[in-house]
Amino acid sequence: MRQTIIGVMGGTSASPETEANAHAIGRLIAENGWLLLNGGRPTGVMGASAKGCREAGGTSIGILFDGEREAACEHLDIVIPTGMGAARNVANILASDVVVACQGQGGTLSEIALALRFNRPCVLLDFDPGAAFLDACGEGRWFLAETPEQAADLVREQLEEMGRA
Amino acid sequence: MRQTIIGVMGGTSASPETEANAHAIGRLIAENGWLLLNGGRPTGVMGASAKGCREAGGTSIGILFDGEREAACEHLDIVIPTGMGAARNVANILASDVVVACQGQGGTLSEIALALRFNRPCVLLDFDPGAAFLDACGEGRWFLAETPEQAADLVREQLEEMGRA
Amino acid sequence: MRQTIIGVMGGTSASPETEANAHAIGRLIAENGWLLLNGGRPTGVMGASAKGCREAGGTSIGILFDGEREAACEHLDIVIPTGMGAARNVANILASDVVVACQGQGGTLSEIALALRFNRPCVLLDFDPGAAFLDACGEGRWFLAETPEQAADLVREQLEEMGRA
Amino acid sequence: MRQTIIGVMGGTSASPETEANAHAIGRLIAENGWLLLNGGRPTGVMGASAKGCREAGGTSIGILFDGEREAACEHLDIVIPTGMGAARNVANILASDVVVACQGQGGTLSEIALALRFNRPCVLLDFDPGAAFLDACGEGRWFLAETPEQAADLVREQLEEMGRA
Repeated sequence: MRQTIIGVMGGTSASPETEANAHAIGRLIAENGWLLLNGGRPTGVMGASAKGCREAGGTSIGILFDGEREAACEHLDIVIPTGMGAARNVANILASDVVVACQGQGGTLSEIALALRFNRPCVLLDFDPGAAFLDACGEGRWFLAETPEQAADLVREQLEEMGRA
Repeated sequence: MRQTIIGVMGGTSASPETEANAHAIGRLIAENGWLLLNGGRPTGVMGASAKGCREAGGTSIGILFDGEREAACEHLDIVIPTGMGAARNVANILASDVVVACQGQGGTLSEIALALRFNRPCVLLDFDPGAAFLDACGEGRWFLAETPEQAADLVREQLEEMGRA
Repeated sequence: MRQTIIGVMGGTSASPETEANAHAIGRLIAENGWLLLNGGRPTGVMGASAKGCREAGGTSIGILFDGEREAACEHLDIVIPTGMGAARNVANILASDVVVACQGQGGTLSEIALALRFNRPCVLLDFDPGAAFLDACGEGRWFLAETPEQAADLVREQLEEMGRA
Repeated sequence: MRQTIIGVMGGTSASPETEANAHAIGRLIAENGWLLLNGGRPTGVMGASAKGCREAGGTSIGILFDGEREAACEHLDIVIPTGMGAARNVANILASDVVVACQGQGGTLSEIALALRFNRPCVLLDFDPGAAFLDACGEGRWFLAETPEQAADLVREQLEEMGRA
């Protein structure tokens, strides 16, 4: 049976609080035995979540905006350069059983919108882009979490509902 | 010199009011001598905007989710099937000088987020996904329009600022 | 009814003979009333074919590897940046009614292979990658042309067979 | 340090001999401790190589043409649906340290061309599309192998040259 993949999205640059959240959710993903998937760059939410995952002995995959492996974070286990730019956002979402979105900007918000469009449950970790937006995205399920621990609990609940936990 | 392209985004299914808006903005794009670009399908905002553009003697381009030309709207002049699914949303945005977003769901909202991320001015026609979302998208410029005429005026202003009108 | 699109593929750098062929086929595409589509860059087969098309009063579309319009050839009428790198090769092929391939390298050969895979007739203009390759590509139709005039005749024949001329 | 990825390309439908080769190279990739990456479908070279990899205790990744996980082979460990069609071929190649190409048609040949364009060493397993094609692809390195064992030896040599073995 295929492994469970949790996508972690968020800004290439991030505040210390957001990076701490990303690092913690990376650890929790590893501790729960899930695979972490992110956008693969070494900074912000991507770098912090991959680092947290590795420190806890987990496995992480990065699907890169860039076409060169040199652009990837050193803490990733599996590096997939695409050279497709933001078009790879779609693969990030479609590959994820559940998406955790940390604070970010337009790229992250496009991924949240795609998650809801493609029916991937989306846990928003300390990030609230507003119900007007989230509800307009359609029928998808979204959840607000204040802490990484709450986010991990919400991920687990969603996986249980899908029969994957 | 290359032609000016106005992207019109919005739902595959749409209310009669939204379709009327899409039809009217399609006409206005043609009357202003701009090219219309949309997602190429025959229904909703895509079908209505292409129809309006053709009726006013304009030229329209559809960049399709699908890989088959048969999926395209009959009112388009230039049909570009991609078979790339939602990944083609990125091309829709990058090709547009200004984006007009009519009411839609997750796909449309991902395009609004990408427009703001890639610094394409975005005119929201009778569609307000909330300032919490729009401001979170970053530095991009967005504008609310109540009518197609207001939307066309905002497009023209943005083109003038860019030295394209 | 949608317009007929002829894709012209070939190297970013090209010999003077290949550039002359590309320039001539660009002119012939315009003179026949077809749209020219290429990869949009200013050099090699792309630059020369767009220049030929414009000189003969035709219309050309460039679908760019790059995400920035600044990377586009000045002779194009319609510029579609994608930021998708070589992934955009698929759109180049799917959008073409017939493909003309001038001399090129790996990128061009990937496009010839895709043309044959997706059943786009492919005219090879002074470029012979060998029957072992072409036949292995599957059921697609391919034709060798020595001159731009022969290539245009082969394109016209294929369009006639498809009921588009 | 990131894991080493060997891409296995080849037809969706394949002869029994080609499937046997794909199954054997899948086993050898696992036995050498490399990750296997393929196009993710359940049939032909994709299905056989994933099955061989799993039987030998290895890990495999499938990057799918399709947008639905249901299209994936049951023997894969990591499933990445893309909905991007043939555009995902680029990611298949860019993610691979070395590419092994079994017999295939246009899709496979487009991947061989991209491998050589993007400087991924390409081992052709019982598949010879001709030197005219391979040399035209540019400066990339390619190697003909008659058996899966020879292919694995060639992969190992290439990895050693890159300092990855």
